[in-house]
Amino acid sequence: MFRTAELGQKVPKREFNQREPLMRQALLEVQANLRVSSKFPVIVLFAGVDGGGKGDTVNLLNEWMDPRWLVTRAYDKPSDEERDRPDYWRFWRDLPPDGHIGLFLSSWYSQPILRRVYEKDDEATFDDRLDRILAFEHALADDGALILKFWMHLSRDEQKRRLTKLEKAPLTSWRVTPRDWEHWHIYDRFEAAAERTIMRTSTGQAAWTIVEGVDPYFRSLTVGNIIRDEITKHLEEARNKALVLEELAAERKLHLAEARQPAAETAEGEAVEPAVVISPLQRATVLSSLDMSLHLTKSDCRKQLQECQARLNQLHRKALKKRISTILLFEGPDAAGKGGAIRRTTRALDARHYQVIPIAAPTDEERAHHYLWRFWRHLSRAGRVTIFDRSWYGRVLVERVEGFASEDEWKRAYAEINEFEEQLTDHGILLLKYWVHISKDEQLERFKAREQTPHKRWKLTEEDWRNREKWDDYEWAVNDIVEHTSTHTAPWVLVEGNDKRFARIKVIRTFCERLEARLNDNK
Amino acid sequence: MFRTAELGQKVPKREFNQREPLMRQALLEVQANLRVSSKFPVIVLFAGVDGGGKGDTVNLLNEWMDPRWLVTRAYDKPSDEERDRPDYWRFWRDLPPDGHIGLFLSSWYSQPILRRVYEKDDEATFDDRLDRILAFEHALADDGALILKFWMHLSRDEQKRRLTKLEKAPLTSWRVTPRDWEHWHIYDRFEAAAERTIMRTSTGQAAWTIVEGVDPYFRSLTVGNIIRDEITKHLEEARNKALVLEELAAERKLHLAEARQPAAETAEGEAVEPAVVISPLQRATVLSSLDMSLHLTKSDCRKQLQECQARLNQLHRKALKKRISTILLFEGPDAAGKGGAIRRTTRALDARHYQVIPIAAPTDEERAHHYLWRFWRHLSRAGRVTIFDRSWYGRVLVERVEGFASEDEWKRAYAEINEFEEQLTDHGILLLKYWVHISKDEQLERFKAREQTPHKRWKLTEEDWRNREKWDDYEWAVNDIVEHTSTHTAPWVLVEGNDKRFARIKVIRTFCERLEARLNDNK
Repeated sequence: MFRTAELGQKVPKREFNQREPLMRQALLEVQANLRVSSKFPVIVLFAGVDGGGKGDTVNLLNEWMDPRWLVTRAYDKPSDEERDRPDYWRFWRDLPPDGHIGLFLSSWYSQPILRRVYEKDDEATFDDRLDRILAFEHALADDGALILKFWMHLSRDEQKRRLTKLEKAPLTSWRVTPRDWEHWHIYDRFEAAAERTIMRTSTGQAAWTIVEGVDPYFRSLTVGNIIRDEITKHLEEARNKALVLEELAAERKLHLAEARQPAAETAEGEAVEPAVVISPLQRATVLSSLDMSLHLTKSDCRKQLQECQARLNQLHRKALKKRISTILLFEGPDAAGKGGAIRRTTRALDARHYQVIPIAAPTDEERAHHYLWRFWRHLSRAGRVTIFDRSWYGRVLVERVEGFASEDEWKRAYAEINEFEEQLTDHGILLLKYWVHISKDEQLERFKAREQTPHKRWKLTEEDWRNREKWDDYEWAVNDIVEHTSTHTAPWVLVEGNDKRFARIKVIRTFCERLEARLNDNK
Repeated sequence: MFRTAELGQKVPKREFNQREPLMRQALLEVQANLRVSSKFPVIVLFAGVDGGGKGDTVNLLNEWMDPRWLVTRAYDKPSDEERDRPDYWRFWRDLPPDGHIGLFLSSWYSQPILRRVYEKDDEATFDDRLDRILAFEHALADDGALILKFWMHLSRDEQKRRLTKLEKAPLTSWRVTPRDWEHWHIYDRFEAAAERTIMRTSTGQAAWTIVEGVDPYFRSLTVGNIIRDEITKHLEEARNKALVLEELAAERKLHLAEARQPAAETAEGEAVEPAVVISPLQRATVLSSLDMSLHLTKSDCRKQLQECQARLNQLHRKALKKRISTILLFEGPDAAGKGGAIRRTTRALDARHYQVIPIAAPTDEERAHHYLWRFWRHLSRAGRVTIFDRSWYGRVLVERVEGFASEDEWKRAYAEINEFEEQLTDHGILLLKYWVHISKDEQLERFKAREQTPHKRWKLTEEDWRNREKWDDYEWAVNDIVEHTSTHTAPWVLVEGNDKRFARIKVIRTFCERLEARLNDNK
């Protein structure tokens, strides 16, 4: 989930200096529009890893924006006053009114996450606390509030580097407390709790944005950009809604003269298109971080393949005995070598015990059901291996990019997929998700080769060429997939596939490692 | 919550015999429309008290409807096949396709409720299971499915009567198992689990209907009516949505020729207005069950008032010491005597320890926040009594009836209110909700008396007369409030208020009883 925020993205100082005055202007402008329309409050929430720049970003935003319409709130131990009331009383009383922005630090997410990390709450209680958050944010968003949530991320190593650096400098050493180091030592537990939090509370109305927190310039511009864009979008939506209500009200005027929506009265002509133009930040995808030069010699490959397959065969016999099922799924660009990798894997298994399910266009019967139904029906009995050649991720890949699924449909699919996969892993199934990747140039080479090989020509269609044109869209879709669905229990395995030999070995070896770990888990 | 389904509502046999053929015709008609449009599946789910008529109703529906487009599923212990897969596999594989209706008995709700009743799961785990249900139903509904959930209710006494009767007759005695009696003995635990289930899983997309299960004629016609109406409504909505999509698709045709929504192609002219006309069933509100003739003599009242007030004073001193807060709220028709009851209550308390909050139109500042914000800010410190003269229920009463809140707003308010009140009671606050009721005639008397008393004339406004015209709407709104928000921890106290003396004593006495119980709870 956090892999997309460990790419080392940076903005050079010089670029930041150029961008900063524009950003300030853009934010002041959007703040003014928000104030004039005064239709909803904006709640901006910061959470994440210590040292990820939560405080610094909030300070910078306070510098950039107009303080009259901005409040910042941070929460420590509850006061006497606060302890006398239900927990959420302090959050309710600090909510910004319509037209204002509230920045929240160590907010309603702090206690639930810390209680879980320190094992004061079990998972079910933790989920209950997250439910309370969901209900709270849901009520506010339904009432029109715009809620933006930023998760400022640092990797374990990066956090250590940062704490050490702060500690060494005399002027900043006070900022590092023993508690910070304590947290660093339980980074893994913290990450697991964070992952569950983000997965469960990232809703359409109040989604999390994971921000790479290493570079202060990159992170503050990223946050500033999103705040500006989202407020602009929300103002636009509120204005459209008010116009519709106004029309409705006009129609009903005779019948219902008093019941007019107050919003309708101030609807017209005040939400303006933003005047300040900011060019988008350069961003990197998780695929761009892969080392595509990885490769194996023919003889190395042959040797390793034999070893791996033998090992896999043994491991799977054990799995069968222990009734541990495996589901492997393969995604990747056309011609990435998914089929070849699958064949090398199944060769190590007994045909009675695995099943390969190629996913193409749905049948009529499948079309008459929820899109997940076709995958549920293919789940095998205990101990078996089920291999999906393409999978339920089509919803957030091809259907998203080609517009076959509406934005609403593919956006909610992440949560549906996570829920589905949680049911699989909760049941004890080992789930492995492979993205077999190739570079755009390598794909071109392979397409050309296919055209020239008679027995492979049928594999290449017009559609393959068309998909190629949308290469960047697909890459961003994969980035979002990894961000939303790569979890502790079901992480994505990104396979560097320019060298087919390397890819095949990596696929089988990862399978072996994960299966072995799973077998050891199981007493 | 179940009080609205304990009103003894019946349909006479003669009326049933007239209505049945029409109902059959109406259901067959709607089934045909559903099949022709074939846009979504219908999932009808039955749960509730044993003996509440779940099975009988499903049998009757099978008789009434066309079996070719109807499946019925009931679930016992999972099979080997099913145990090999995640729990929900069996539900997924049984889902009806578009255009079909599935009737589900002992479905995904059975296990969670039973595990909670038999204390195999704690509350947090129970909530986790309900979350899984929510996600499941949410995914299906988002995909277009219509989900109808019926809770067939019997009171504790009624269930006993029914089991005894079945047991006595030789032909039906086999239907009563030892397990049924076992369940009857833990009725209260079952009711608590049922209440939480309904509260947490009644969403806009998949709401529960609580059906009074005593009379077979009443319950089956009620269920039949709702199935017919909801399918008709959903067909209409699906058709409108398809038309909008079609327009959009037409606009984008040039740009995106391939990506057309398949739904748009079959959009026109097939969803027809229902031809069969059914007259609505006579239904009763929970207020109609009150005995409005209850009264007290002047001397009885004086004596009891003194006793109650003395007791309350003592109890509240203890509560103050133990830091147990109380919130009382009063709702009721104009001139029901809320103010008088509040004054009699506060007379028993020390002015430093209570606060009366009259709720009128919101201030500007309040209007710029979520509607619950104004109530959160008035929560008092530990040990105090806060009395709301009118309350957050305005949202689902006056705002609903007068159209100040949209349907969407007041419908989601039940869940928001339950969440709010759960936070109050979780924090240890005693919450008492009074509905002080008077009959329509009694109100007229009081209005007239006010007009003739100079020092009371100001209390009577034009608005009071206008509200009177919507008496029935208000009564149904109260019925819905009791159904949705009367819970074990925060039940509604319905006060028969035609006799002011009786009402005042009931208010204070109930306060004493509940406070005493709360003090005893608290070690």
